[in-house]
Amino acid sequence: MAMLTPAQTAEVLRTLDDAALLAHRDPDSDTIGAAVALCAALRRSAKRARVLCSDPFPERYAYLNIGEEPPEFEPACYVAVDVADPKLLGRYEDVPVRLCIDHHPSNRLYARDTCLVPTAAATCEILFDILALLGAELDPALASALYSGIAGDTGCFRFTNTTARTHEAAAALMKAGAHAGNINRILFEQKPLRYYEIERRALESLQLYAGGQCACIAITREMKAECGATDSDLENISSLPRSIEGVRVGITLREQPDGRVRVSVRSVEPIDASVICAALGGGGHARAAGCELSGPPEAARERVLAAALPFLGADMPR
Amino acid sequence: MAMLTPAQTAEVLRTLDDAALLAHRDPDSDTIGAAVALCAALRRSAKRARVLCSDPFPERYAYLNIGEEPPEFEPACYVAVDVADPKLLGRYEDVPVRLCIDHHPSNRLYARDTCLVPTAAATCEILFDILALLGAELDPALASALYSGIAGDTGCFRFTNTTARTHEAAAALMKAGAHAGNINRILFEQKPLRYYEIERRALESLQLYAGGQCACIAITREMKAECGATDSDLENISSLPRSIEGVRVGITLREQPDGRVRVSVRSVEPIDASVICAALGGGGHARAAGCELSGPPEAARERVLAAALPFLGADMPR
Repeated sequence: MAMLTPAQTAEVLRTLDDAALLAHRDPDSDTIGAAVALCAALRRSAKRARVLCSDPFPERYAYLNIGEEPPEFEPACYVAVDVADPKLLGRYEDVPVRLCIDHHPSNRLYARDTCLVPTAAATCEILFDILALLGAELDPALASALYSGIAGDTGCFRFTNTTARTHEAAAALMKAGAHAGNINRILFEQKPLRYYEIERRALESLQLYAGGQCACIAITREMKAECGATDSDLENISSLPRSIEGVRVGITLREQPDGRVRVSVRSVEPIDASVICAALGGGGHARAAGCELSGPPEAARERVLAAALPFLGADMPR
Repeated sequence: MAMLTPAQTAEVLRTLDDAALLAHRDPDSDTIGAAVALCAALRRSAKRARVLCSDPFPERYAYLNIGEEPPEFEPACYVAVDVADPKLLGRYEDVPVRLCIDHHPSNRLYARDTCLVPTAAATCEILFDILALLGAELDPALASALYSGIAGDTGCFRFTNTTARTHEAAAALMKAGAHAGNINRILFEQKPLRYYEIERRALESLQLYAGGQCACIAITREMKAECGATDSDLENISSLPRSIEGVRVGITLREQPDGRVRVSVRSVEPIDASVICAALGGGGHARAAGCELSGPPEAARERVLAAALPFLGADMPR
C-alpha cells in the first residue's frame, strides 16, 4: 500500500493498460464522471479501457457518452474512482484494486496504491489535475464528465467542500466546452412530477427534535410504490431536512425494498455527520454522511436520534 | 447618455464624491451586494458614500455589514447598481442618476452614463472587474458582498448565465476570504418551515398545459396569510414549475397585498422569457423574466398563458 500524489498517480496510469475503471454501486455523478473521463483519456493514449459498475448508470447520465465500446477484453488491472470502501464495489468487491483515486477521508486504503486528496471537493477535481499532468487535452465530452462530478459533489458549488480551486477547475472546464447549463439542469433542476408528490408526503412525515435543531423525514416502501418513485428519483431529498431554518442535523430515512433503511445525515458546522454515522456502521463526509440500518423506519429513527441528539446537547424524546 | 466600459466607469467613479448608491426596490442579493461593495470601496478611498433603497433589506442579508454609517449628508450624485429601469427605484424614481452599472439587457439607459455588460451573470461580476481597475483591495467583507450577488443571480452557478469568467471571479473572491459556505446556506438552503407549508399548497395549485411543456403555480394572498409567509420567503419558489421534467415554460403567480399579481416566467432554451414578459409590460433575462398584472390570479394566468403558449406551439386551453 502506497499513498501517491497526483503526479505519481499520473506516472502509474502511464504504465497501465487494459484497465477496468470501477465506479461505486448506486453510482452518482462523481464516480461516473471520474470513470468516464479517465476511460476517455486512457483510450486517447491508445490504451484499452472500460468502465465497470455493479449497478447500471441512471438514465439521466446518458449525456456522459464515452463513445463506442471496445470489444470485450480481460482487464489486466482495476482502478477504482471515488470508491471509499471495497464493499461499495458490489459484485466487484473481491477484485484486486491496483489504484484508487478518491477524496473521501474515510477511504479504507484497500488498493495497492491510493491517491487520496481529502481537500478536493470531488474525485473529478483530483482527476482534473491528474489528466493535466498526463497531458490529456480537454474536449467538451471530457470536460463535461469532470464538470458533472464536481458540480454533483458540491451541490453545484453550494456546499462547504467547495474551494477556490474548485471554481478554478470549473472555469477551465467551461472554457474547454463543458455543457454546464444542461448538466446543471439535469443534475439539480429537473425532477419528475412524482418527486414533488413524494416530497409532499415526506413533509407530512416531518418531525422536529431538540427544539427544532434536528429534523427527520421518512420515506417508506409504500410511499415510493404509491408515487411510482425510486431511490434514484430521491437523491436530493436528503438535503430537505437540514434546509429548514434552525436545523443543525437533518436526517432522511429511506426504506429499501428488502426492508432495510438507508439513512442520510446532513449537518451544519461544527457537527460531524460522519462521526454520527460511523457510530452506526456507516461513514462519509463531515457534513453529509450515511449508513444502513435494519428496519422498520421507526426503529431506525430511534437509533439515529440516539446517535445524533447528544451532539445537540439534547436527550432522546420520550 | 454615454455607454462606458468598466475601465471608463472606474475613471468616473474616481471623480465622484458624496455618492448615494441606489439599489432596486424588492432588493435581491445582486443589487444589495453591488451597492454594499461599491459603498465600502468608495469609503476606503476616503470618499463619503451611502446606500439607498426604497425597501428595507431583507433580514437574511444582515451579514453584509458595511460598517458604521457616516453622518447624514446630502448626496452630490446618484449611482444605480443592477437597476434596469428607474421605476424600480421606487421613491427614488425621479432622482438624476449620474451612473448606472448593470447587466440587464433590458436596461432603459436612463442614466447619464451607463456601464452595461449583458454577458455578465451579475452586476457584482462587473463590479468585481471595476473594483480591480480602481485598485480596491478585496477583504473578506467586500469579497462576501460581491460573492453574494454573483451566487444569487446565478442560482449558485447553476443557471445558464454562468460563464468561465463567473467561476474565475468566484475563485478570486473565495481566495480573498468570501464566506461562501455561510452565504450559500443563507441564500439557497435555509428556508423557514412556513416555506415548505406554502410550497405544499402551491403544488396543489399546479396546472400543466401544452402537453406538460408549461407549468403554472399560483400563490394567493390567503395562502400567504394562512402560512404567515411574505414574498421575501418565496423568492425561490418561482424556480419550481420549470423544474418539473418536460416543462419548458414555468410560471409563478404571486398575488400582492393590493390585489395585483406578480408574475415570474422561467424558460428553457431557446424560449425567451423576457420576450413573453415584454408583451405584458415587463422584462428581464432570456431565461428568467417577470411582469406585474392586475388580478385576480385567474385572470393574470389567462393573460400569461396567452402570451406564453404560442412559443410552445400550443393553443390556449379551453
